[in-house]
This record gives sequence, structure tokens and C-alpha cells, in this order.
Amino acid sequence: SRSGIPEVIYAEGKTPRKVSDIVERVVSQKGMIAVSRASEADHAEIIHRIGTEGVVHNREARMIIVDRRKDKPSNVGRIGVLTAGTSDIPIAEEAACVAEIMGCDVIRGYDVGVAGIHRVLEPLKTMISEDVACVIVVAGMEGALPSVVAGMVGVPVIGVPTSVGYGLGAGGIGALTTMLQSCAPGLVVVNIDNGFNAGATAALIARMRKSSL
Amino acid sequence: SRSGIPEVIYAEGKTPRKVSDIVERVVSQKGMIAVSRASEADHAEIIHRIGTEGVVHNREARMIIVDRRKDKPSNVGRIGVLTAGTSDIPIAEEAACVAEIMGCDVIRGYDVGVAGIHRVLEPLKTMISEDVACVIVVAGMEGALPSVVAGMVGVPVIGVPTSVGYGLGAGGIGALTTMLQSCAPGLVVVNIDNGFNAGATAALIARMRKSSL
Amino acid sequence: SRSGIPEVIYAEGKTPRKVSDIVERVVSQKGMIAVSRASEADHAEIIHRIGTEGVVHNREARMIIVDRRKDKPSNVGRIGVLTAGTSDIPIAEEAACVAEIMGCDVIRGYDVGVAGIHRVLEPLKTMISEDVACVIVVAGMEGALPSVVAGMVGVPVIGVPTSVGYGLGAGGIGALTTMLQSCAPGLVVVNIDNGFNAGATAALIARMRKSSL
Amino acid sequence: SRSGIPEVIYAEGKTPRKVSDIVERVVSQKGMIAVSRASEADHAEIIHRIGTEGVVHNREARMIIVDRRKDKPSNVGRIGVLTAGTSDIPIAEEAACVAEIMGCDVIRGYDVGVAGIHRVLEPLKTMISEDVACVIVVAGMEGALPSVVAGMVGVPVIGVPTSVGYGLGAGGIGALTTMLQSCAPGLVVVNIDNGFNAGATAALIARMRKSSL
Amino acid sequence: SRSGIPEVIYAEGKTPRKVSDIVERVVSQKGMIAVSRASEADHAEIIHRIGTEGVVHNREARMIIVDRRKDKPSNVGRIGVLTAGTSDIPIAEEAACVAEIMGCDVIRGYDVGVAGIHRVLEPLKTMISEDVACVIVVAGMEGALPSVVAGMVGVPVIGVPTSVGYGLGAGGIGALTTMLQSCAPGLVVVNIDNGFNAGATAALIARMRKSSL
Amino acid sequence: SRSGIPEVIYAEGKTPRKVSDIVERVVSQKGMIAVSRASEADHAEIIHRIGTEGVVHNREARMIIVDRRKDKPSNVGRIGVLTAGTSDIPIAEEAACVAEIMGCDVIRGYDVGVAGIHRVLEPLKTMISEDVACVIVVAGMEGALPSVVAGMVGVPVIGVPTSVGYGLGAGGIGALTTMLQSCAPGLVVVNIDNGFNAGATAALIARMRKSSL
Amino acid sequence: SRSGIPEVIYAEGKTPRKVSDIVERVVSQKGMIAVSRASEADHAEIIHRIGTEGVVHNREARMIIVDRRKDKPSNVGRIGVLTAGTSDIPIAEEAACVAEIMGCDVIRGYDVGVAGIHRVLEPLKTMISEDVACVIVVAGMEGALPSVVAGMVGVPVIGVPTSVGYGLGAGGIGALTTMLQSCAPGLVVVNIDNGFNAGATAALIARMRKSSL
Amino acid sequence: SRSGIPEVIYAEGKTPRKVSDIVERVVSQKGMIAVSRASEADHAEIIHRIGTEGVVHNREARMIIVDRRKDKPSNVGRIGVLTAGTSDIPIAEEAACVAEIMGCDVIRGYDVGVAGIHRVLEPLKTMISEDVACVIVVAGMEGALPSVVAGMVGVPVIGVPTSVGYGLGAGGIGALTTMLQSCAPGLVVVNIDNGFNAGATAALIARMRKSSL
Ligand SMILES: Nc1ncnc2c1ncn2[C@@H]1O[C@H](COP(=O)(O)O)[C@@H](O)[C@H]1O
Ligand SMILES: Nc1ncnc2c1ncn2[C@@H]1O[C@H](COP(=O)(O)O)[C@@H](O)[C@H]1O
Ligand SMILES: Nc1ncnc2c1ncn2[C@@H]1O[C@H](COP(=O)(O)O)[C@@H](O)[C@H]1O
Ligand SMILES: Nc1ncnc2c1ncn2[C@@H]1O[C@H](COP(=O)(O)O)[C@@H](O)[C@H]1O
Ligand SMILES: [Mg+2]
Ligand SMILES: [Mg+2]
Ligand SMILES: [Mg+2]
Ligand SMILES: [Mg+2]
Ligand SMILES: [Mg+2]
Ligand SMILES: [Mg+2]
Ligand SMILES: [Mg+2]
Ligand SMILES: [Mg+2]
Repeated sequence: SRSGIPEVIYAEGKTPRKVSDIVERVVSQKGMIAVSRASEADHAEIIHRIGTEGVVHNREARMIIVDRRKDKPSNVGRIGVLTAGTSDIPIAEEAACVAEIMGCDVIRGYDVGVAGIHRVLEPLKTMISEDVACVIVVAGMEGALPSVVAGMVGVPVIGVPTSVGYGLGAGGIGALTTMLQSCAPGLVVVNIDNGFNAGATAALIARMRKSSL
Repeated sequence: SRSGIPEVIYAEGKTPRKVSDIVERVVSQKGMIAVSRASEADHAEIIHRIGTEGVVHNREARMIIVDRRKDKPSNVGRIGVLTAGTSDIPIAEEAACVAEIMGCDVIRGYDVGVAGIHRVLEPLKTMISEDVACVIVVAGMEGALPSVVAGMVGVPVIGVPTSVGYGLGAGGIGALTTMLQSCAPGLVVVNIDNGFNAGATAALIARMRKSSL
Repeated sequence: SRSGIPEVIYAEGKTPRKVSDIVERVVSQKGMIAVSRASEADHAEIIHRIGTEGVVHNREARMIIVDRRKDKPSNVGRIGVLTAGTSDIPIAEEAACVAEIMGCDVIRGYDVGVAGIHRVLEPLKTMISEDVACVIVVAGMEGALPSVVAGMVGVPVIGVPTSVGYGLGAGGIGALTTMLQSCAPGLVVVNIDNGFNAGATAALIARMRKSSL
Repeated sequence: SRSGIPEVIYAEGKTPRKVSDIVERVVSQKGMIAVSRASEADHAEIIHRIGTEGVVHNREARMIIVDRRKDKPSNVGRIGVLTAGTSDIPIAEEAACVAEIMGCDVIRGYDVGVAGIHRVLEPLKTMISEDVACVIVVAGMEGALPSVVAGMVGVPVIGVPTSVGYGLGAGGIGALTTMLQSCAPGLVVVNIDNGFNAGATAALIARMRKSSL
Repeated sequence: SRSGIPEVIYAEGKTPRKVSDIVERVVSQKGMIAVSRASEADHAEIIHRIGTEGVVHNREARMIIVDRRKDKPSNVGRIGVLTAGTSDIPIAEEAACVAEIMGCDVIRGYDVGVAGIHRVLEPLKTMISEDVACVIVVAGMEGALPSVVAGMVGVPVIGVPTSVGYGLGAGGIGALTTMLQSCAPGLVVVNIDNGFNAGATAALIARMRKSSL
Repeated sequence: SRSGIPEVIYAEGKTPRKVSDIVERVVSQKGMIAVSRASEADHAEIIHRIGTEGVVHNREARMIIVDRRKDKPSNVGRIGVLTAGTSDIPIAEEAACVAEIMGCDVIRGYDVGVAGIHRVLEPLKTMISEDVACVIVVAGMEGALPSVVAGMVGVPVIGVPTSVGYGLGAGGIGALTTMLQSCAPGLVVVNIDNGFNAGATAALIARMRKSSL
Repeated sequence: SRSGIPEVIYAEGKTPRKVSDIVERVVSQKGMIAVSRASEADHAEIIHRIGTEGVVHNREARMIIVDRRKDKPSNVGRIGVLTAGTSDIPIAEEAACVAEIMGCDVIRGYDVGVAGIHRVLEPLKTMISEDVACVIVVAGMEGALPSVVAGMVGVPVIGVPTSVGYGLGAGGIGALTTMLQSCAPGLVVVNIDNGFNAGATAALIARMRKSSL
Repeated sequence: SRSGIPEVIYAEGKTPRKVSDIVERVVSQKGMIAVSRASEADHAEIIHRIGTEGVVHNREARMIIVDRRKDKPSNVGRIGVLTAGTSDIPIAEEAACVAEIMGCDVIRGYDVGVAGIHRVLEPLKTMISEDVACVIVVAGMEGALPSVVAGMVGVPVIGVPTSVGYGLGAGGIGALTTMLQSCAPGLVVVNIDNGFNAGATAALIARMRKSSL
């Protein structure tokens, strides 16, 4: 497509059969598809139906990618992905995974959250020196990390609130609100746990740099 | 600064005196400042204090810009700004205004909202042919336009919900929710009525293209 | 009854025994009943109690219909039912199912949602040329499809938000809010996942046309 | 247009000048327009600009209608409009007003709410004997009237919650929730205070009967 | 105690052992106790510990009563308990059960809800002719029945919202809001699903009549 | 009427003319009426229209009572009214005022709230020794007083949350929630600021004692 | 009193006369009082009634203190008060003002918020070297500063969210949620804009150190 | 660390393997760690990995503490921990447990809640005579106990709302709101169920007294 963003289906609430029906149809038309929130059963059914060629199951990200395209995009650009805690990693991997399919190099820095701001400095320095086009910051609970990062870099930051946390602001509402209320310009957000959209948008931004050459 | 985003103060709830105190201090240090949600009284007090040189009052956007820098950024890139209705224009102007200070060219397309999807096609076509780096879409009420636009362009879209609307979802909550729930990848959002941040982030994206030359 | 709307019981939270008690009583009085959110166990218990005559179990819609009336209504009119995604189909089937018992012909167009507006055009054209009296549009997540459809047809549109979606606006609140905020006149809504009411109201509208002959 | 629904602008938050600009443009193109939530100043500015021909200001409904069409629709059908209390009348008039422009006859029954269910019986009987195609029921506070009416008539009922009421459920949220939760099939709703949409949809339903002759 | 209201423990979230510890202690001190939201396991453990004397398990109400008092209150007065639907019965039984321990006679009228207002008339007539001191009305979904009943009787009505219902207002919030917004004076409410408190308060009211003899 | 509760109109949002229209009509039919949230202008217009006979304006309660009945109820019973703070007094007076019209004696105890539990003891002791049938407790902010009182008396307690308070739980939501969550049986509630309903229900309870003589 | 916390009245919603009534009574009994959210009119009325002796009006904090005690507490300990922005200063002053009446020394550091974390370092260093017993951190919008500070000091931090901010999380809800969700142990909070309570609690903590000498 | 607060990991949502990875790493660096919301499986995996030395599993608190430090803090000070009900005990134990690791003595008083205020008096008296530096009060449902306690003691009170309760204010929102709305100065709060933070802050306060010797 114009944007190069892979078609994605959300597997939660669909039977493995329904999922693999759609996978089969889309792959035969476009050569590729992404399945988010995928289960082991979805994976089993898919490879049972269309074989293992070009099928990758990123279990951490709960994603299945089927990519049988001839010309895969590559070298599109570089982005960074940070998480505040370890619970935020699956969503971060979902983002990284999508950006990689779209041809980006991804620099990861996980579990560097607020409890020790200093821990974010090193991965950030690497990202800046590697000239990332955009930084995705994934955080739950109070969700303050994206705002801190946005104050430190000169590129756009995409905040991804995660549904980690309990009490007032549970389910990611606290983190989302913090990110939207942030006074740090340059920070934009996606919905709670929507790693997919963060990864896709980051890749669109990264691609811009290359395409302008 | 690293990012080139102007310092901004939020005038609502501050006396004109407090506003102009800050303006005077910041301008003397950095040569420029932006004042959002500014009143006529704020404007009067500012020019009374520091004179009219480099002071622009964009009344539609309720912004005052003071820019006394020697080297103003220009030619940084091109972005598009769309609004769904006429009530959304002040927030759109806030965004456009900030992007312009940061050196962007802005293509506007106002009042092209959902009631007639066809009306959005023409300004979008212009924006695409002019190779915008990013499209800001400002919308209140149901807030569906950003999602429609994101489905049509290959660049990132920044959705800005506005506080237009009444009943369930009043005050912009409906529009914000729609944008976050959108299935269209490539769409990221800022908080309700936060035109400033949308404009600043769009300029960061636009600049990326140029900087890579 | 005056309205021809079948009595319906909501099976969730009732034991199969309680459900079949009510079914038996109502069928003996009125010749028919509808059971929504019905389980396999409800179905087994019902046919165990009253036999299979006139009992239809629409598993997709999670509905059991018992219809032992002599004179079933038919040819009452024609309505359309659309869904944005595949997850919305069970609720759409609930609506279609009720309209059919009330004697309507139903034209279905599923999975035609916003990601590709063009996909909605074909089923809509058919519906218009078949002169539907009303279009039911079922959508989760951002719930923008009903508004789009209402802008394209000259008949009433009934929006049915579904509880699909996560993050801010989860559980259908986002879709409901979008539909209520919509600027498109001619669009009315029912509660989240209430396919039954959408189907019943659509049939009342369809019947009006016939009854005026 | 296809649907015959007049173009409407929402005057709240627009200057009289902006309102009359739009009115002038739309009237010259389509011969008519409706202005909702209109002030005296809007009215003054409009007749100052385009004269009084075909301009009607319904103060109770806070609407201005400009209608300079040659062929005005008439005899399109009959609808009923009920209110629970006296505070609900402005919204009811907004609905009635729109339905009348679209060519409907409107039977009104105001202040017949729950405190005495018996008071609703008489106007309802008239409406039924006059064969209304649809009943609009406008109610604030607990908003129970639409549900009661839907249980008594065999035509669709459109519930309009109003922003009357205080405490938990204030601003119309209570009434809206009651209507959505209602067990009475045949009841559909519009957003709080959205009389315009209720009137437009009712007229679409009424027209159906006629159009089928 | 002064009020005669039995001590009650809320079993949900406590182990059977913890529950029976408390039961044993309280019964040895006061001769009686009520256990709400009790499971089969709670029951088994209690009779294992203290024997079956005076232990009654009302499964419909999910309550266990242990009453080993010498002088049980009786003839304290008469109250009515109504439910809108069948799903509301467990909460109604919780209320009835408590009122009975406190010495009241209870007249029940279940599943008489709004769908047919006429169905409420007969049980209400009996309650009025039997001179009940108070009517408890239990209702979920739109929760309109208590308001209707309060308009028909000259005694206090206690509304009990139940957690039945889905969509906007799910979990009983819709019913609670309706009851609080009700325009019918004489209607007071307790929290969602709190049958216990409704029964206890109704008995306090009933006792007043007797005590004044 | 059956219940003796006076008809009441809510003046907020109605013009003095509309208010006095209704007052005139109701007084001529029933001899009495109550106007809540009444302004000075409402009062002026009413006495201008119907004279001062039997018109009482309780400014603290913002109520106007018109009572021209021959046989006014009296000696119906005794109730207590408490407030936590001084800001809660207007709502308490609204309740007291209604109970008095219905023939009750009212014992007041204002500003005795939680900050010093001891201050509530004295008025409570008087109320108990005077044998009140019911205690109304009006409280804003955390709203804990009704629960404390219910633990100390053997008669029903009606909690009235007021819209005093700011921050989380502002507008009375905090106080309402506290009262509904209270573990103290015998406590029932009305909506925020609804003194009228509290007074009317308390009088119904008080009357019960007398009527049973 | 035991705690030394001054009695305080909340002036908002009370007439100057009511305020000064209470002031007069309390001062004659206890020698002192604090009035929060006080207006000029409250001040005028108070000094008109009781003279100017010991009356201090802190306009920034909107507080009036009357202190005619012989032995004023002093040297009780030292606390720090920080604000994120300039809009947060009135609430910070309310806190500082109360702590000072209770005998504390207060070190202020205003407008040091997140936009530049470095700006918070200097005042924090002073506070630590001056051995403050507690730090109050006042912040609106995203409210991240208290969490950052709690990660840097070894004493308790009291977060005070302010009602600054708009959009999702407006009115201080965003800041409150952030502070409650914070992962930084040692951070406790008070309600939005409740500077009074923050100041009082900080003084209790400070006093502890001294009292143990 | 500066503050002596142990590093803590939140085990919910992490696999035992992930949990024990982190435990192993942190213990080898700092000699200790706390695991909250820990399962039996977490415990098994931890002792399998690092042996049982210094590992304590407080099952009531669902916490695992690993403490292999040479110099454990002790005699740091004394705090009190109260609960309203028995359901609140696990959260109270979490708080007590953390305070103990930080070297505090803890005086417990459980199940002393509102139903009988007198029951709180005895443990409070002990706490005061033992000179506690701070009282933690854990309460669900209406959450009124912390406010009552704050009115009775001269030291800071930390309120911990628990997620006990149903209906409006369920999940601890009611208790949290009550505590924030409380008029009792000296009361500060932590998020729902956050016993850890309450314990840590209480220990910081207690330590202050000692450290000042
Ligand atoms: N009373 C009303 N309620 C809801 N929507 C309205 C109302 N009046 C006008 N509109 C819609 O609001 C939109 C106008 O937006 P704007 O251009 O910002 O005035 C149009 O789509 C109208 O159909
Ligand atoms: N700024 C404030 N924030 C919170 N509570 C306050 C404030 N000022 C006074 N109060 C409390 O509000 C209550 C006064 O209620 P009232 O008698 O209605 O004025 C007392 O308990 C005061 O301690
Ligand atoms: N229109 C705006 N929307 C959001 N944040 C803003 C806006 N204008 C200024 N700000 C931010 O608000 C903060 C200023 O807070 P204050 O010092 O209280 O004015 C700064 O961090 C600004 O970056
Ligand atoms: N069904 C119920 N609804 C509301 N409160 C209850 C119920 N059952 C018991 N309680 C109250 O819950 C509290 C018991 O708390 P706990 O000690 O945690 O069990 C007591 O105050 C009881 O009066
Ligand atoms: Mg985190
Ligand atoms: Mg719009
Ligand atoms: Mg969908
Ligand atoms: Mg009404
Ligand atoms: Mg029901
Ligand atoms: Mg109060
Ligand atoms: Mg701030
Ligand atoms: Mg409790």
C-alpha cells in the first residue's frame, strides 16, 4: 500500500479458524499480514493451513508475521524503543516488530524507567548518536517516562501507555492521562497497549528521512 | 534549543503582569517566546513593556509570538492542517502558528469535515502533491476525520480533538476517544485543544526530511 | 402484540432450567419467544422440555427462536445490516435474526468497515437499489461507520456500538460516544451490543412502508 | 439533498458574523438553512444581511429557519412529540421545528411526564388515532417516559435525553443511560439535547410511509 | 442491639475457615448472625463447626442465618418486596430474609417489571390492602420500577438497583442513577445489590408502627 | 393526595412567569404548592399574581411554600435533621421545610460534623429522648456523618449528600459514594442536594407511627 | 489542640458575615483561626468586626490568619515547598502559610517543574543541606514532579495536585492520578488543591523530629 | 540507599522465572529485595534458585522478603497499623512487613472499624502511649476510619483505601474518595491497595524521630 503499513488483524475474540481464514486470504492477495494478540492455537492453525514459509511467531510480542513478499523493505531508517518497566516489554516488542517488518532498524532499551532516571541516559545517548528518527516510549503506572524523554531529545516521541497499574488510573488510564497532560512538546500518544500503531507511525517518520535523500 | 521548539507559556489563569514578566525574562534570554490562550490585555501589557518589535498577535489562534532572533529558521519543510468544522479553526491556527515559527510552510484546509467526505479530497490532494511531511487534523464532536485522513495518506497524521460538542462525550472526550480507538495506523494524538503540541511535533517531523539531505 | 415484537429473554445469568421454564410458559401463551445470549445448555434443555418443533438455534447470534405461530408475518419490508469488522458479526446476526422473525428480508454486508471506505460502497448500493427502509450499522472500536453511512443514504440509520476495543473507550463506550456525537442527522442509536433492539426497531420502520399501502 | 434534511449550523461558540456568513452562502446555494442554538444577535445580523424573507425565528426552540425554496415539502406524514416536563420543551420544539420544515405534521403533548402516567394517555391516544409514524419523547432527570411510551405504541419511539437534572447523572447522563438501558424494544436514542437529529430522523421515518404509496 | 439489626458478615473474599471463625465467635456472644454472599463451602464448614441447630441456608439469597436466640422477634410489621425481573430475585430474597429475621411478614411480588406495568398492579393492591409499612423495589437495567411504585403508594419505597445490565450504565450504575434522579418523592435508595441494607431499613420502618401502639 | 406529599416545582431554569403560571394553576386546584430553588424574582412574581395569603418564603432553604388549605396536617410525628457543616444548612432547611408542611415537628442540630464527633452527641440524645421517627443527616465533602449516626440510633437514617467539596469526588459525588458504601445498616440515601425528597420520605415514616395509633 | 493544627474554615460559598461570625467565635475561644479561599470582602468584614490585631491576609494564598495567642509555636522544624509551574504558587502558599503558623521554617522553590529537571536540583540541594523533615511538591497538568523528587530525597514527600490543566485529566484529575500511580515509595498525597492539609501534615512530621530531642 | 526503602518488584503479571531472575540480580547487588503480590510458585522458584537463606514468605501479605544484609536496621521507631475490617488485613500486613524490614516496631490493631467506633479506642490508646510516630489506617467500603483516627491523634495518619466494596465506588474508589475528601487535617493517602508505599513512608517518618537524637 501507499503507506507500507502491513494489514493487521486483532486475534483476541476470534477463533483460530477465523484468524487463519483471514490470514490465508490476505497473504494470497498481498503477500503478507500481521496478527496481533495471537495465541499458540492461532499459530498452529496458520502453519497447518499455509505452511511455515515466511511465518514468524514473536511470542514476547504475541504477534505472528507472515511475510512472503519478494522485495522486503529494508534500511528504511532507525528508531528507538524504550520501556519503563519489565511488564511493558510485550507491548514494546509489538511496536518493534511492526517497525522491523516495515524495514526499520530498532534500538531497544528496556526497563530503564523512572525509579532511576540515570538508567535511561545510556540507551538514550546511543539512540541519539545512532541518529534515530523517533523514540517510542512504553510505560505503565504513572507513565512519566515519555515526558522525560521528550524533554531530552530533538525528535518526535511516541508515548504508549500500558494497562499495567491498579487503583485510581488502573488499566492504563493513569499513564494515558499523564502522557496527554504532559507539558513536553514533541510528545504524541496512541491508545493504551497499542504497540502496533506506535511502531507503524514511527516507521512512517523514519522513512521520511530516507525518502528525502 | 536542541529541538527548536519555542518556549511557551499558557496565559489562562495568569494576570497580564505575570505573563509579561515571563515574556520579558525569556525574550531577553532566548530572543523569542510564544504565549498561548492570550487575551487583548496580555497583548497590551506586553507591548507596553517591551515594545512592538517582533511581536505578532494572531487573534484567531489566541497566540502572541515574540520573535527577535537574528536567524529565523525557514524552509524547514511543509505540513498540512485540516479542520472538520469552523469551530475547530482557532485550535488549528494555534498549531499552524507554532509550525510556522519553527520554519515550516503550512497548507490549510478548513471546514472540510465528515458531513461531506468529498470536501476533504481536494485539499488532501494538494497536500500530497506538495509533499507534506505530516498532516494535522483538528476535529470536535465525533472526531472521525483524522481516522479517515490517515486511511488516505502515506505520512503520519496527528489528530487534535477539540472541546466542541455536548452530551455524552462533551468537552472533547468523544473526539479524543474516537481518535485513540481508531483502527487507522499512522494516527497519533495530542490532548484536547492542544494545538501547540501538534504544531511543534509536526515541525519536528518535517524538519527530519530536510535535515537528512 | 400490537407491535409484533417477539417477547425476548436474556439468558445470561439464568440457569438453563429457569430459561426453559420461561420459554415453556410463554410459548404456550403466545406461540413464540426469543432467547438472547443463549448457551448450548439452554438449547439442550429447551428441546428436552418442549421438543424441536419450531425451534431454531442461530449459534452465530447466540439466539434461540421458538416460533409455533400459525400465521407468520412475511414480506413486511426490507432492511440492510452492515458491520465494520468481523468481531461485530454476532451482534449483527442478533439484529438480523429478530428482523427476520418479524417478517423482514435482510440484506447483509459484513466486514466492510472504515479501513477501506470503498468496501462499504457496493453493499450500500445494493441496499439502496433494493429500497431498504432502514440500515443497521454495527461497529466497535472507534465506531465511525454508522455516521459515514448516514451521510450516504436517505433512510434512517440505526447505529449499534459493540463492546469490541481496548484502552480509553473500551467495552464499546468509545463507539457509543462516537455515534451519539455524530453530526450526521438520521442516525439514532441503541445501547452497546443491543442487536435485539436494533432489529426490532428496524422491522417497525420497515413495516410502516407496507402498512401504508 | 437525497434525504431532504436541511443543512444546519450550530451557532453556539460562533460570532453572529460567522453565523450570517454561512447562512448567506448556504441560502444562495440551496435556498434554505437551519441555525440551532441561535441568539437574538444572530437573528438581527441575519436579517440585516439577507432581509426577512422566509426567515422564521422560533425563540422557544432557539432556532432560526431560512426557507426560500419554491417547492416546500408538505404532507409528508405525521409524528408525535411528547415531553416529560416543562423544562424539556425547548428541545422538543427544536425537534418539532425540523420535522415541520421537512414537511411533517406534528402533534404535540407537553409536560405529561411520569409524575402522573395517566396524563400521557390522552395525547398518546390522539397520536395513535391520528396514525403517527413515530413518537419523539423528550425527558430529563430519570428519563423514564420514553420507555413507558415505547411499551404502549406499535411505532418506533425516539428518546431525547435533556440536560435537566442534578447530582449523580446530572447534565442528562442519567436520562441517556435510562433510555439506553431500557428493556422496551422499539426505543432508539439520540445524544443529550439533540432535538435536531430526533426531528430529522422522525421525518425520514414518516416520509417512508408516504413514499411507499 | 438497640436496632435489632443482626450482625452480618460479607463472605465474599473470605475463606470458609475465616467465615466460620467469626460465626462461632458472634453466635456464642449474641446468639445469632447472618452471612451474606455465602457459598456451599461456607455452609459446610459452619455446620461442621457449630452443628445444624438454628442454621438456615437460603440458597436463592446466598445467605446463611444462624439464629439460636430464645426470644425471636415476630409480628413486627408487614413489608412488600417487588422485583422488576427474574434476575433480581436473589437480591430481593436477601432483603426479605433479613426483614424476616427481624420479625417482619413479607409479601413478595416478583418479575412484575416495566415491560407490563399492569403486572405490578395486582401485587401492589394486595400490599396496600395488607397495609405494608414500606415497599422494597428491586430492579436492574433501566431501574424505572421503584419510581413508578413510589407514584402509586403512600408509604416509603426503598429502591435497590441490581448489577444486571450491560453497555452504558452496566453493573447497576444505570439503575442506581435512574432511582436517584427519580422525580417521585418518597423513594430512597441503597447501593447496588445491597439487599441486606434494604431489608434492615424496611424492618426498622415497619417496627415503628408497632412500637407506637 | 394519598401520600400528602405537596406538589413541588423546581424553579431553576424556569422564568418567574412560568413558575407563577404553574403556581397559580396548582394552588387553585389543590390549595397548595412548594417551589424549590426559588429566587427573589420568583417570589415577587408569585405574590404579584396571587397575593401574599399563605405564601411563605424560606430564604435559607430557597423555597417558597403556598399553603391555603383549610385543614393543615399537624402533629404527624417528629423527625431530626442534622448537618455536618454550615454549608449544608440550606439543603437541611429544604428538608425540614417540607417535613413541616406535611405536619411534622422538626428538631434541628446543625454544624455538628465529624471534626468533633462529640458535638453530634448532644443533639442526638435530644432527638432520641424526643422519640424521633427518623433522622435526616446532611453532609458534604467526605460525607461520613450519616454512617456514624446510623450506628448510634435505632431508627432509619436518611443521608443527603451535598455538592460541597472539591477535587476527586467534587460536586457531592464523594459524599454520595461514602453513604452508599457505608456498612451501617439502616442508612438509605437520596440524590445529591435533594433535601426535598429526604424531607418528604421522613414525613411518610413519621406519619406511620401516628397512623397506627 | 493535641495536634496544634489551627481550626480552619473554608470561605467559598459562605457570606462574609457568616465567615466573620465563625471567626469571632473561634478566636474568642482559641485565640486563633485560619480562613481558606478568603475574599477581600471576607477580610474587610473580619477587621471591621474584630479589628486588625493579629490579622494577616496572605493574598497569594487566599488565606486570612488570625493569631492572638500569647505563645506562638516556633522553631518546630524545617520543611521544603516546591512548585512545578507558576500557576501552582497559590496552593503552595496555602501550604507554606499553615506550616508557618504551626511554627515551621519553610524553604520555597517555585516554578522548577519538569520542563527542566535541572532547575529542581538547586532548591532540592539547599533543602537537603538544611535538613528539611519533609518536602511538599505542588504540581498540575501531568503532575510528575513529586515522583521525581521522591526518588531523590530520603524524607517523606507530600504531593499536592492542582486543578491546572485541560482535556483528559482536567481539573487536577490527571495530576492526582499520576501521583497515586507513582512507583516512587515515600510519596503520599492529598486531594486536588488541598494545600492546607499538606502544610498541616508536613508540620506534624517536622515537629516529630524536634519533639524527640 | 539514601532512603533505606527496599527495592520492590510487583509480581502480578510476571512469570516465576522473570521474578526470580530479578530477585537473583538485585540480591547479589544490594543484599535484599521485596516481592509483592507473590504466589507460591514465585516462592518455590526463588528458593530453588537462591536457596532459603534470608528468605521469608509472609503469605497473609502475599510478600516475599529476601534479606541477606549484614547490618539490618532496627529500633528505627514505632508505628501503628489499623484495619477497619478483616478483608483489609492482607494490605495492612504488606505495610507492616515493609516497615519492619526498614527497622520499625509495628503495633497492630485489626478489624476495629466503623461498625463500632469504641473498638478503635483501645488499640489507639496503646499506640499513643507507646508513642507511635505515625498511624497507618487501612479501610475499604466507605473508608471513613482514617478520618476518624486523624481526628483523635496528634501524629500523621496514612490512609490506605482497599479494593473491598461493590456498587457505586467499587474497587476502592469510594474509600479513596472519602479519604481525599476528609476534612481531617493530618491525613494523607496512597493509592488503593498500596500497602507497600504506606509502610515505606511510615518508616521514613518514624526514622526521623530517631535520627534527630
Ligand atoms: N444542534 C445540533 N446538534 C448536533 N449537531 C449539530 C447541531 N447543529 C449543527 N450541528 C452539526 O454540527 C456541524 C457543524 O459544525 P461547525 O462547522 O463547527 O458548526 C454540522 O455537521 C452540523 O450538522
Ligand atoms: N481549604 C480547605 N480544604 C479542605 N477542607 C477545608 C478547607 N478549609 C476548611 N476545610 C474544612 O471544611 C470544614 C468546614 O465545613 P463548613 O462548616 O461547611 O465550612 C471543616 O472541617 C474544615 O476543616
Ligand atoms: N497551550 C498549551 N497547552 C499545553 N501546555 C502548555 C500550553 N501553553 C503552555 N504550556 C505548558 O505549561 C507549562 C507552563 O506552566 P505555568 O508555569 O504554570 O504557566 C509549561 O510547561 C508550558 O510548556
Ligand atoms: N451484603 C453486604 N452488603 C454490604 N455490607 C455488608 C454486607 N455483608 C456484610 N457487610 C458489612 O461489611 C462489614 C464487614 O467487613 P469485613 O470485616 O471486612 O467482613 C461489616 O460492617 C458488615 O456490616
Ligand atoms: Mg512502568
Ligand atoms: Mg467538528
Ligand atoms: Mg470495528
Ligand atoms: Mg423531566
Ligand atoms: Mg430488570
Ligand atoms: Mg461537611
Ligand atoms: Mg505544572
Ligand atoms: Mg472496611
